[in-house]
Amino acid sequence: MFTPKAIGFVRSPYTDTKSIPKGLGARHVADGVLEILPEFEPGLMDIEGFSHLFVIWTFDRSEGFDLIGSPPFEERPHGVFSTRSPRRPNPIALTVVELKNREGNLLNVHGVDMLDGTPILDIKPYLSSIPAEKLRRGWIAEAEARKQG
Amino acid sequence: MFTPKAIGFVRSPYTDTKSIPKGLGARHVADGVLEILPEFEPGLMDIEGFSHLFVIWTFDRSEGFDLIGSPPFEERPHGVFSTRSPRRPNPIALTVVELKNREGNLLNVHGVDMLDGTPILDIKPYLSSIPAEKLRRGWIAEAEARKQG
Repeated sequence: MFTPKAIGFVRSPYTDTKSIPKGLGARHVADGVLEILPEFEPGLMDIEGFSHLFVIWTFDRSEGFDLIGSPPFEERPHGVFSTRSPRRPNPIALTVVELKNREGNLLNVHGVDMLDGTPILDIKPYLSSIPAEKLRRGWIAEAEARKQG
Repeated sequence: MFTPKAIGFVRSPYTDTKSIPKGLGARHVADGVLEILPEFEPGLMDIEGFSHLFVIWTFDRSEGFDLIGSPPFEERPHGVFSTRSPRRPNPIALTVVELKNREGNLLNVHGVDMLDGTPILDIKPYLSSIPAEKLRRGWIAEAEARKQG
């Protein structure tokens, strides 16, 4: 296996996990900056052309994992691979952000849900979507229905 | 930083990289199996409810990285973070698959583009999509237009 290394860090308005919107219908509307280390800046060539990016990052302030747990907004337990819990066997996270613009090694983005200072492992272009009408959203959809009902 | 560990392995029809569809318009239509290690099987609870999954995996047969390179189907160079190249600072890959069904620790999926035996790092539910009309696809869209033109 490889040894993960930070290619940069997130600048975000969130300094503690309580301030990050969570739960059903939580919207990630915060602006932030992906600050890429100067040594990796050449890898950003042509990224300006993409409207959305996948950001792969680490839950660096989480330790250990639970295979089954209850999300904060849901009393029922679910398997960790059915949730976005930070307590995962590999503490890897994935966020889709909208790229507003680039200034050298800085990517100004919309839609961050990371803590300030979070290490970034990778950035990839978002190329295509599964149409909404083809998605089944399991326990999330059921919990939303219960909340509204 | 954490030490990555496999939570399971991909069973795929692809045994060498040449056989994996690549390039503009490449479609990933192969069926495969995500074989989760028995010790992590409890983490799959409730995953059957989701139609699509993000699979995070490692390019375990790739070494080193290039910050700028030319994809196989494109003579022009691009930054690695604007491409899906396996030669990345962190050899982490992301694939969206359709979940057909689950048999215990086995997830039967559609749309694999991994080599047989590839280590899996994480699985997450696919919850929402960026609408196609909101996506800009940069050099990929330009290359597609040139190919058609």
